[in-house]
Formats: sequence, C-alpha cells, structure tokens
Amino acid sequence: MTETLAPGATIGILGGGQLGRMLSVAAARLGLKTHIFEPGATPPAGHVADRVTTAPYTDSHALAEFAASVDVITYEFENIPTKALDLLETLRPIRPGRRALAISQDRIAEKTFLAEIGLATAPWAEVTDAASLERALDRIGTPAILKTTRLGYDGKGQARLSVAADASAALQAMAGAPAVLEGFIAFSHEISVIAARGISGEIAAYDPGENIHHAGILHTTTVPAKITAAQRTDAVLIAARILNALDHVGVMGVELFVTPAGLLVNEIAPRVHNSGHWTQQGCAIDQFEQHIRAVAGWPLGDGSRYADVEMLNLIGDDIDQIPSLARAPNTSIHLYGKSEAKPGRKMGHVNRILTKA
Amino acid sequence: MTETLAPGATIGILGGGQLGRMLSVAAARLGLKTHIFEPGATPPAGHVADRVTTAPYTDSHALAEFAASVDVITYEFENIPTKALDLLETLRPIRPGRRALAISQDRIAEKTFLAEIGLATAPWAEVTDAASLERALDRIGTPAILKTTRLGYDGKGQARLSVAADASAALQAMAGAPAVLEGFIAFSHEISVIAARGISGEIAAYDPGENIHHAGILHTTTVPAKITAAQRTDAVLIAARILNALDHVGVMGVELFVTPAGLLVNEIAPRVHNSGHWTQQGCAIDQFEQHIRAVAGWPLGDGSRYADVEMLNLIGDDIDQIPSLARAPNTSIHLYGKSEAKPGRKMGHVNRILTKA
Repeated sequence: MTETLAPGATIGILGGGQLGRMLSVAAARLGLKTHIFEPGATPPAGHVADRVTTAPYTDSHALAEFAASVDVITYEFENIPTKALDLLETLRPIRPGRRALAISQDRIAEKTFLAEIGLATAPWAEVTDAASLERALDRIGTPAILKTTRLGYDGKGQARLSVAADASAALQAMAGAPAVLEGFIAFSHEISVIAARGISGEIAAYDPGENIHHAGILHTTTVPAKITAAQRTDAVLIAARILNALDHVGVMGVELFVTPAGLLVNEIAPRVHNSGHWTQQGCAIDQFEQHIRAVAGWPLGDGSRYADVEMLNLIGDDIDQIPSLARAPNTSIHLYGKSEAKPGRKMGHVNRILTKA
Repeated sequence: MTETLAPGATIGILGGGQLGRMLSVAAARLGLKTHIFEPGATPPAGHVADRVTTAPYTDSHALAEFAASVDVITYEFENIPTKALDLLETLRPIRPGRRALAISQDRIAEKTFLAEIGLATAPWAEVTDAASLERALDRIGTPAILKTTRLGYDGKGQARLSVAADASAALQAMAGAPAVLEGFIAFSHEISVIAARGISGEIAAYDPGENIHHAGILHTTTVPAKITAAQRTDAVLIAARILNALDHVGVMGVELFVTPAGLLVNEIAPRVHNSGHWTQQGCAIDQFEQHIRAVAGWPLGDGSRYADVEMLNLIGDDIDQIPSLARAPNTSIHLYGKSEAKPGRKMGHVNRILTKA
C-alpha cells in the first residue's frame, strides 16, 4: 500500500451519519470509493457510499472484513470503542491517529494536553465526588458548568451551576461518571477554526467562523467572523500548534472563545466539524474533501474563502421549513436523508451565500 | 404519487456516467435517493447511488422492476432506445418528456423545431445521397460540415468539407446514415445557456458561459462570457422560448453562436450539460440540483452566479495532470471514477475559481 491513494482506492469510514455522508461525496469527487461501518440501520451515508457494513463495534469478524476491504480507515465521530480501534489499527492505518482520539474522548486529557502545549482554556478542575466538587467551586466559583469527562456532545451530559447550592443536583446529573467543572468565561463570541494537516506535515486552515448556539447545539456559523486580523492569525496559529503537537493527519475543529484577554480554547474535535459546513459553498476545497485528501495522502487543497457564507443548522422540526427554504435566494440546502425528525436531531443545514458576483 | 417528491423518495436515472453520478450527489443533498439503470458494468454513478440495475435497455423485465422501484424517471443522455421509453412511460413519469428527447435525438427534427419557433440556426440541408449532398453544397457552399442526423456527440459521426471535392469522402464517413449538411458560421465565439423549467412552468437560467472546444470536444467553459448585456438577455430569452415550446421539465443545455448578426442556435441537449459544470462552484444551486428539483417537482432554486469560474475538462491522458492540479490554487477537482483513461474519454473536470472574497 502506498502512502498516496490512487483514484479507485477505498476509504473506510467508521460512522454513517451526516459527516460520513458528506465525506463520501467528497471522496467520490476525487475518484475514491468509501465503505461505511455503522451499527445503526439505514445510515445516511449509505445512500452515497460504495459499500456499507451494518454491524456493532464489538463484531470483530465484521471489523476485520471491513478493514480488509479498505486502504485506510477514518472516522466521523470520536467516541469509537477502544477495542474496535485496537483491532483495526493492526490491519490498516487509522487517520487521524489514536492520540487525537484519546485526547478528544476525555475532557481532562484534552485540557491537560492543551495546558502542556501552552494554550489557555477556561479554568477547570476534576470532579469525582461531592468533596472534589466543593474544592473546585471554591477555586472556580459560579457560574460554572459540570460536564462528564467522556461522551459529551451537543450539550448532553452537562449541568449548569448558577450558585454553589446547585452542586448536589449537578453532581447527580453526572450519574456517577467522572466529571470536570469549568468556569464560565466572559467571552464576546465563539469562533471556530477548521484546520487540516496533511501526511507530510503541511497545514491548511480555513478562515475562522463565528458560532451561535441555541440550547447547547450549534445554530449558525458565519464567515467572516467579527474578529480583528490579529485575532484571526492567533486563531489559526493555535489550531496549527494543536495539529502539529498531535502529529494529526486529517481535519480538526477547534472551538475558541474570544475574550478581552485573548483567545481561549473551548474544545477540539479530531474530525470534520459542524461549524465547517459553510466551506461547501465558500471554498474551492471544502472541509470534507480536505479531510479525505489528508487521510488519502494527497496534498491539501486550497481552502481560501471566496464568498461570505452563513451556515444555518436544521434541527428537529426545522426541517418543516424546507418548502420555504427551497424558494429562498442564495440558499443551498443540504439534507442528511434521515427519515424521522426528533427534537435536537440534526436533519440538515443550509448555506446562505452573502456574496454577489 | 404526488407531484412533489418528499425527502426519502427515489429518482430513477437512465445512464450511469458522470452526469448520472453528479445528479445522484445533488439528489442526496435534497434527501432524495437515486436508482441508476445502466447496461455497462461498474458505472461511475454507482459509487454514489442508493441502487444500481445493470441490464440492457432491451431487458423489459429489468426496466419494469426499475420503474416500480422509483417515483420518477429522468436520464443523463438523450439517445435512449425508443422501445425502452415506450415501456417506461406507461409505468412512471419521465421528465423531461418525450418531445425534447425526440427532437434532440435527430438533428433535422431539432433544426425544424427551432425554425418553427422562429429561432435562427446555421444554414442546413438534409442529405441522404450524393445527389442531395450536391444540391446542399450548391446552396450552402464550403466550408461546411456533414453530420449524421442521429447519435452524434463530441465530434463523432461528423466530416468536414473544406472544398466541394471533399463531398464523396464525407458521404462515405456517414456510412449510409441519414445526414445533414451545415454551413460554417462566422461566429466570434460559442456560448451556452444552461436553463431549467420547473413543473409549474417557471424558468431559471444560469449566466451564459463561453465555450472553447478542442478536437470537437468541449475544452473550457468560462463565466462570465465575453458578451454584451443585450446578448446575455437574448441568450436567456432564446433558451426560455425553447423550454416553454417543449413544455420541458428539467435542465436543458443550449449552445449558441455569437455572430455579428445575432445569436444562432447550434444545438440543444435536454439534460444537464458539460458546459454547466462550472455551476458547482459558482452558484448556490448547481445545474445538477436544479435538474433534480425540476424532475422532483420542487421549486427551482436560485442559480445566481456569485463567482467567476473557468471549467476545464480532463480528457483521456489529461488525468495525469491530477498530481499538479491537486496543488493548484483555487481549483476544485471533480473526477468521475472511471478506471481506464482512453483518448477522448471524459475523465473529470476542474473548476478554477477566479473570484476572491
């Protein structure tokens, strides 16, 4: 197997959701096939993939067959069971590598890593019981937020502490899982940098986008973000430092808080990221293709932004807006092929182009 | 079956080449599935389609099963055997309809139709034998080009007559097939309009692109074309007149010659068109999605152009340029997943973005 996949080669993708779906389409643009591994039935990525394996991550036979059929393995989510990875990595390269996964699966490992490479985050403390929570509150104060260290995303596994008296309810919400208390940051806004590192170490970063969340879920990302040129450069340098330190191969999403004292890292995701969906309409090479290029050993592409874009997520019943969105000017619709719209479920997104030729 | 397909519905596509492939991806963006019908093995569209049927157009059982599995049928090429269409149209709606197909399958029917609706073309005459070719040459003169009336594309089935003495060799090249002699036009350049008509009759046209051919095959399309505002309007009005006259539902490509005396229609194609591939990077809704919207009964989308783009076809060995194109700035690569690069075979295209944010 060469480092660079030729057209016709196959990329295995762990996870068959919307990110896997858009990765599959990007792979096809480069003449590459995809094979999706997904425990759930009728995965969204299956409609545009060359092949789908439906099996649990505990099925070592299915995992081995999957690995044998692909040239390299990547993933669309970071919470892949460790045992599955242990098996797969003996059979095929996994990109991005285990270190990025280990760090992003555990908030404490992530914050410790960021501190080690000199990057600032919100104040935080490990919480395992009532006593450690009390000590953490003494140091960090309120308001604060208690989060499980593992498997948290989109606001799940989180409890807000407005006052110290909220401690016991918050601890109960963790259901005994290890947790981390994070202090609230007086940030003016949140931005994210989507950046990629290629197999030979080169880095390409997209222009930072400005994020607005509703109920803990990303609502819109807008480019350009309202930041200064210096903040833009800082943001890109922070992302590049993280990618290099992890010897990362692939795309990473880095969420940052913009504060008067500078940029703080909120969290990182070793994969394509919801806040990078605007690149589909704003750049010659979108984040999905950039990730495929990296894991396939291709050179990274030009991610220069050539349009102003606002990405709007369609969550749950937002999907009912499709008839009117279908008639809206400058609006590109991206639906994920999910049959049922549940509350909080990401059903699609739209990219509104704010630039005119 | 309602007029408007809901997400989850399936569009059947006759033909599994690169146009079917890009139509499949566009359908997926709208949450629609595709089922490809293609006689050839390993069709490019198969990598991104929900389902593929591999069978000849003479297999009425396979055609009937295909039709039963889809909600509407469209096609990526115009030379579909009539008997297959006769069967399919009894089972499911075919969009665009039979009239556009009949006209575009036959150069004489096409030119007659265009004349009937008052649109100018190059001078032409029907040629069935040496005597009719001689009469045609007397009227049209040289240089001229003799073309078979059916199944011609990308310069195939064509013979150039520089002088009248070339007549017998040209006639021989037709191999007894009915033909048409076309006079050469002193055109300054060729443009094409990609336009769509929706199920309720609304029309949306893309900004005309300027085409350059090499060896009878499209080489580049560039937007904006070097034409005046009046010519741009004329071009769009010509396309709209054709779409309306045919009661067309879907995208159509209309090639036009720009001459001092005005625009002449070169030819029409009742489908997405190579000269419209630039829309993938220049518009919120590209020609593939516009076609899917029309045949699915959705409203047409906004095809406003927000970037200047040059589309470059990768023909045959051009595919060897991929390593350098992969590093080129502002360049979006679209490969078709074909395993073998034959001379004249369309292997992919690139869209170069000429606009900066």
